[in-house]
Amino acid sequence: MKIINENRSQILIEALPYIQEYSGKIVVVKYGGNAMTNDNLKQKVMSDIVLLSTIGIKIVLVHGGGPEINVMLEKIGKESKFINGLRYTDKETMDIVQMVLCGKLNKDLVSLLQSHGGAALGLCGLDDRLIEAKQLSEELGLVGDITKINIRSVMTVLESGCIPVISTVASGENGETFNINADIAAARLAAELGAVNLILMTDVIGLLRDKNDESTLIHSVHVSEVPLLKKQEIISGGMIPKIDCCVEAVRRGVKKTNIIDGRIPHSILIELLTSEGAGTMIV
Amino acid sequence: MKIINENRSQILIEALPYIQEYSGKIVVVKYGGNAMTNDNLKQKVMSDIVLLSTIGIKIVLVHGGGPEINVMLEKIGKESKFINGLRYTDKETMDIVQMVLCGKLNKDLVSLLQSHGGAALGLCGLDDRLIEAKQLSEELGLVGDITKINIRSVMTVLESGCIPVISTVASGENGETFNINADIAAARLAAELGAVNLILMTDVIGLLRDKNDESTLIHSVHVSEVPLLKKQEIISGGMIPKIDCCVEAVRRGVKKTNIIDGRIPHSILIELLTSEGAGTMIV
Amino acid sequence: MKIINENRSQILIEALPYIQEYSGKIVVVKYGGNAMTNDNLKQKVMSDIVLLSTIGIKIVLVHGGGPEINVMLEKIGKESKFINGLRYTDKETMDIVQMVLCGKLNKDLVSLLQSHGGAALGLCGLDDRLIEAKQLSEELGLVGDITKINIRSVMTVLESGCIPVISTVASGENGETFNINADIAAARLAAELGAVNLILMTDVIGLLRDKNDESTLIHSVHVSEVPLLKKQEIISGGMIPKIDCCVEAVRRGVKKTNIIDGRIPHSILIELLTSEGAGTMIV
Amino acid sequence: MKIINENRSQILIEALPYIQEYSGKIVVVKYGGNAMTNDNLKQKVMSDIVLLSTIGIKIVLVHGGGPEINVMLEKIGKESKFINGLRYTDKETMDIVQMVLCGKLNKDLVSLLQSHGGAALGLCGLDDRLIEAKQLSEELGLVGDITKINIRSVMTVLESGCIPVISTVASGENGETFNINADIAAARLAAELGAVNLILMTDVIGLLRDKNDESTLIHSVHVSEVPLLKKQEIISGGMIPKIDCCVEAVRRGVKKTNIIDGRIPHSILIELLTSEGAGTMIV
Amino acid sequence: MKIINENRSQILIEALPYIQEYSGKIVVVKYGGNAMTNDNLKQKVMSDIVLLSTIGIKIVLVHGGGPEINVMLEKIGKESKFINGLRYTDKETMDIVQMVLCGKLNKDLVSLLQSHGGAALGLCGLDDRLIEAKQLSEELGLVGDITKINIRSVMTVLESGCIPVISTVASGENGETFNINADIAAARLAAELGAVNLILMTDVIGLLRDKNDESTLIHSVHVSEVPLLKKQEIISGGMIPKIDCCVEAVRRGVKKTNIIDGRIPHSILIELLTSEGAGTMIV
Amino acid sequence: MKIINENRSQILIEALPYIQEYSGKIVVVKYGGNAMTNDNLKQKVMSDIVLLSTIGIKIVLVHGGGPEINVMLEKIGKESKFINGLRYTDKETMDIVQMVLCGKLNKDLVSLLQSHGGAALGLCGLDDRLIEAKQLSEELGLVGDITKINIRSVMTVLESGCIPVISTVASGENGETFNINADIAAARLAAELGAVNLILMTDVIGLLRDKNDESTLIHSVHVSEVPLLKKQEIISGGMIPKIDCCVEAVRRGVKKTNIIDGRIPHSILIELLTSEGAGTMIV
Repeated sequence: MKIINENRSQILIEALPYIQEYSGKIVVVKYGGNAMTNDNLKQKVMSDIVLLSTIGIKIVLVHGGGPEINVMLEKIGKESKFINGLRYTDKETMDIVQMVLCGKLNKDLVSLLQSHGGAALGLCGLDDRLIEAKQLSEELGLVGDITKINIRSVMTVLESGCIPVISTVASGENGETFNINADIAAARLAAELGAVNLILMTDVIGLLRDKNDESTLIHSVHVSEVPLLKKQEIISGGMIPKIDCCVEAVRRGVKKTNIIDGRIPHSILIELLTSEGAGTMIV
Repeated sequence: MKIINENRSQILIEALPYIQEYSGKIVVVKYGGNAMTNDNLKQKVMSDIVLLSTIGIKIVLVHGGGPEINVMLEKIGKESKFINGLRYTDKETMDIVQMVLCGKLNKDLVSLLQSHGGAALGLCGLDDRLIEAKQLSEELGLVGDITKINIRSVMTVLESGCIPVISTVASGENGETFNINADIAAARLAAELGAVNLILMTDVIGLLRDKNDESTLIHSVHVSEVPLLKKQEIISGGMIPKIDCCVEAVRRGVKKTNIIDGRIPHSILIELLTSEGAGTMIV
Repeated sequence: MKIINENRSQILIEALPYIQEYSGKIVVVKYGGNAMTNDNLKQKVMSDIVLLSTIGIKIVLVHGGGPEINVMLEKIGKESKFINGLRYTDKETMDIVQMVLCGKLNKDLVSLLQSHGGAALGLCGLDDRLIEAKQLSEELGLVGDITKINIRSVMTVLESGCIPVISTVASGENGETFNINADIAAARLAAELGAVNLILMTDVIGLLRDKNDESTLIHSVHVSEVPLLKKQEIISGGMIPKIDCCVEAVRRGVKKTNIIDGRIPHSILIELLTSEGAGTMIV
Repeated sequence: MKIINENRSQILIEALPYIQEYSGKIVVVKYGGNAMTNDNLKQKVMSDIVLLSTIGIKIVLVHGGGPEINVMLEKIGKESKFINGLRYTDKETMDIVQMVLCGKLNKDLVSLLQSHGGAALGLCGLDDRLIEAKQLSEELGLVGDITKINIRSVMTVLESGCIPVISTVASGENGETFNINADIAAARLAAELGAVNLILMTDVIGLLRDKNDESTLIHSVHVSEVPLLKKQEIISGGMIPKIDCCVEAVRRGVKKTNIIDGRIPHSILIELLTSEGAGTMIV
Repeated sequence: MKIINENRSQILIEALPYIQEYSGKIVVVKYGGNAMTNDNLKQKVMSDIVLLSTIGIKIVLVHGGGPEINVMLEKIGKESKFINGLRYTDKETMDIVQMVLCGKLNKDLVSLLQSHGGAALGLCGLDDRLIEAKQLSEELGLVGDITKINIRSVMTVLESGCIPVISTVASGENGETFNINADIAAARLAAELGAVNLILMTDVIGLLRDKNDESTLIHSVHVSEVPLLKKQEIISGGMIPKIDCCVEAVRRGVKKTNIIDGRIPHSILIELLTSEGAGTMIV
Repeated sequence: MKIINENRSQILIEALPYIQEYSGKIVVVKYGGNAMTNDNLKQKVMSDIVLLSTIGIKIVLVHGGGPEINVMLEKIGKESKFINGLRYTDKETMDIVQMVLCGKLNKDLVSLLQSHGGAALGLCGLDDRLIEAKQLSEELGLVGDITKINIRSVMTVLESGCIPVISTVASGENGETFNINADIAAARLAAELGAVNLILMTDVIGLLRDKNDESTLIHSVHVSEVPLLKKQEIISGGMIPKIDCCVEAVRRGVKKTNIIDGRIPHSILIELLTSEGAGTMIV
């Protein structure tokens, strides 16, 4: 038993330099994919977030919610119109997006964090005009392009000791509400909040040199390497917008960004508190 | 023109003693009924709230949302089960309630206040465990009975200069979400926040001595008179729970409570900033 | 009655954008002329100042006091010596000026503001060396030329929630007291305090293109137009020093300055809280 | 020279325990009599006050001004009416009192303290309603009886690092101004400010057991001894109200009160910073 | 590798409720015995303290130093005089005690904590009169009995983000220095600081029901059980003063006290962050 | 008696401009030599420091301790090895230096200041890494060269109202402790703390133009004159490093530095609070 405890202590102690590195700093986590739909993984992410927050790291949780939006749209019999593979967001769809994101997922995450002992408070881009946007293109309806981030509410929530949980709808100039890509919103928030790290949780192991071989995982990419990797089609498909978000965040001053595999239990803890890291880092 | 302006000035000046009375004080407004469904009235309430907030009165806006919940339940084809005239709230219904209140109405009010020049931030009872509850009765499912109010988040929002907009769902001990009567929640919030005034917006002119004669409006009722008025059936029907909320709030230290007619444009301003008041006051 | 109340509310609501514009900002009002000698107008100015202060505008009241000084000089049988139309201020005269301004008018204004429900505190240029000056010219005796403004006391008074009322005598390097032109002092104070607006109350309707025709009132003048208007003798006589003060204030960073007609009741409220404005604005 | 310097140092060092006793504490000094009319003494009092303030003692200076008021009344040819030896204060007299105290003496003291290197700010009982009063008796006109002290302005001035200089006129309920006895005002201010010491500067050596023999000076009197000393007519004439003020201050919580001889140069320093003290202490 | 990481994460997560329990709270650790003389154990204690401090627990480290004092006394050839088994502390011995504790051990611990990434600041009972004492008995010379604890310096150090390291010499009324028992000092400090836990590091496994059988370890003792356990001689010998310290601390308001085995690596972490605890708890 | 008191007051008043000059400012005093070994002088220095601190001057006391270190080295029979006249500091010597400086002298000074009524707190260069250093030269062992000053702990101590007493050992990059020249440390601390004055207490009367004639004392030297004075051998021997420290401090922003004669009682007071000054000033 003592031996086990000593191992246990050893592991805690090995986390010390990482805790010191992040103590009092802001880390933005974009939460989505399997880690959000699989209930077991979800519980683990929540306890990770609460642990990190309790030991003094200021976590800002930004969430998406595609699948639950689809379920709700189906429930009310709303058919989606697609333009070049992107969904057209009319007012009725936007209302459902807002309800599901800000009303259901956001507040459920707040509850869940609290049942793990944390204190949390849900915000959306409308609150205190946290995210301002304009229409991205007329074709896509109420899809927004971020024009400004007003961080006051997030800072207030962090200072009061709560974990801010953020839904990515945005406030238009004329009072309209826009739907915003959550990865992009997380990247912009990370930059404006002066975060030291942006973590994007995905359903892939990271960037692979050979898509079919997990052993070719690229652990670290410098932003200057990105154009070549795109040309070589190592960065391709769904990875392109993710990597672009990371590059954008780094360009705007975020020191480190990580694309991690949300399917691995406790991947956030592994990334932040161990020497190994998880997935691919863009610096 | 000068004469008009002098009148204009006179009206502003006449509001001065009322502004001084409420300056820096907390006033809780329970918003609902016609004032929330009629778009013209809604705009007026919003500009009233922004004005009151701008001149230094700390307004806390608590809203209900029955009609919009019904519309959404219908849309998804959910039938409601009633027990002694009260709706049974199962998990699916609760999800819809939460979505509509916290995701749709709450954030739309935030947007609307902001389009009138205010700064607002939406909260629900789950955020930072603002409202804690237990089950009211097994029969009614997820209908909650308030056990505790934690005002930290509301105070933080007020101090940051925003108007808190509050949806009345509550946090259960085991992570479940309860539906809470908005009048009761407003009364309890008013008491815990040390509000000087609780205003309930209704669709009636106030308490009438003779239901069929508006000229018999009772302007002011002392809590000690309530039992007799109930016995005389002057307080009856839907007025009973409203008056009970007011009595509860007064007992817990709120100085004044008002039941006002939300159908009259600017009834909040009339109540707070003129000598006439609106509706019935319980003190 | 309801209709009247709705109008009343409408007028309050129409003031909202102006209140928002000035909320938390400093406005310096130079008070003098008829508005100070006519008791009815005086009461109105005081309630205006208290109202503006109560709704969150930081009013700094700078006052003159020529007529009362003359009355007192006469009372003690002191004859005035004039040099090129300007009064020579010897030590005895200066003592009377100081007594009347700092002891009588200043403290009476403080009392009056307080009888309208405000909190006020009287300062003069000697307090905490608020206004420092040197002799303007030997000929004129103790007439001073401002060399420095030390705003600490005014800021402290504003922060404590009081309206600062300021008499414009100044502190000389060797302990002597100087008499200072109140318009110039107000302009310099506005600049140093970072005021958004300087309002000079006068006994004229504003700048008139044709002196004999009130309908030729010039509502707005850009500082760059001033030289031409002087050349055209539209700015002439007593208006020259007033306009020069405004130009000086604008040059030192005050956004807007207004010369308003103090003879119109509530002209300050009309200027600050309505779309019409009063008198002539120099920007 | 070194020997002289060592003596010099020795004297500074001997003041140390007294400085430590009063450091950060409030001491109210009632200033009047010869120390105020004799220019040489006046300069010495001012440098004493500035020294005490500079080394961390919070001095509040309350001043009277009888002689200068008389001079001014004479100048304007105002005859005084006396009732049982007390001057009847009509409105015209009150105006002169206010002008001389608040406008002349108060601000001159502010200037003088500043010419000795201090920072000072003049207040009167009207400012922020520092002293509230009601009519003492109809017979005496505008002579006031203190009903309330509001210390906010004095505390604000002390915190900003300035010496508050206070003229003792007071604010009546209906906006009228009352003349207040400066000794009584100083005693009440000392009590409300939580002062550790109240010092009354007088033109006598202190309380003498035998009026004709300075060697019979009573150094210390306990409040319980006062009635007997009055009966024995050791406390008599002008000493009665002075001693009564001291007793009142002690009863309201001021630890020590001193009646000192203002005709002795630096009597305040001697009282506060040496072992010998000056005059009579009432404890 | 992932499996290992998951275990690693699991262990971190299991620490979460303990971290939450102690977050922001003060824990006083009395450090001594083997854990202080064995260099390997010492390094582990230091990293434990830094970890606990980094994750938000306010550790106050109180240390003894018997062995090093003996070494130094020997070095200078000072012989110790014993009275009833207790060492007589003369002035020369006291000087050595002070030098070794405050100069050597204290500052070496500060250095060591800092080499593990912490920030630390060394204090002794003389600093800001942290520990005041009087002579315990004339026989023992400069051995002190604590009369007062002044926590200002410790609170200031904690607020500035440093770990306070405290040597237990004390300040006498006449400027003399007393030697203080470190266990007692730790208990008194814990009480005055409002600590939630006092941990005494010892060289025994804890309180054993049968001294020869480690499996009879008593995990928890209520203060009310102590007299019986003493009577049964289960608490005996060197355990008596240790347990008495714990009882004293609990009586003065410390919630929990622990006697832990400093010979087990990371016993502090095991005690504070795992379900098993280490040694014997007195509550 | 009155005459004596008036002289006494006069002397206090003459100190006023000096007190005003230094009020709230930091003055670093390097304490050593006769003033530290002669008990009578020591008591006087302590009361001077407490007086200066009480009247609002922020004194930082930096002390040396050569003689006491030698006594202790002798006591344990440690022989010193000299290289070019400088003592080689091995680990055992360093331990003794640390013990004597940080454990004995530092804490004794803290006690002594407190017995004169001050509040004091002892620090060394290890605390919160106040002084960081690297090895000066391999030949001299653990003699350090300052690489960085971290003033946080000193500022915290000053803000809490205590006098910081500083021993000049320093923290090496690898956890080692270095011995630091106290004059140099005082100079560097003065610069980093933004001190207005650095006072070095020595055993000489100051810089003499003719070493054998005290009447040739040079009262003031400009840093630009130093090279010539060195060439003329007016600055020579032990004065060279002292003057170099002063020059260094002035170059880094300290306004005034003084080399004063610690053998004269109260020389610090004479220097800071009289017109005569003591010793030689380098500006």
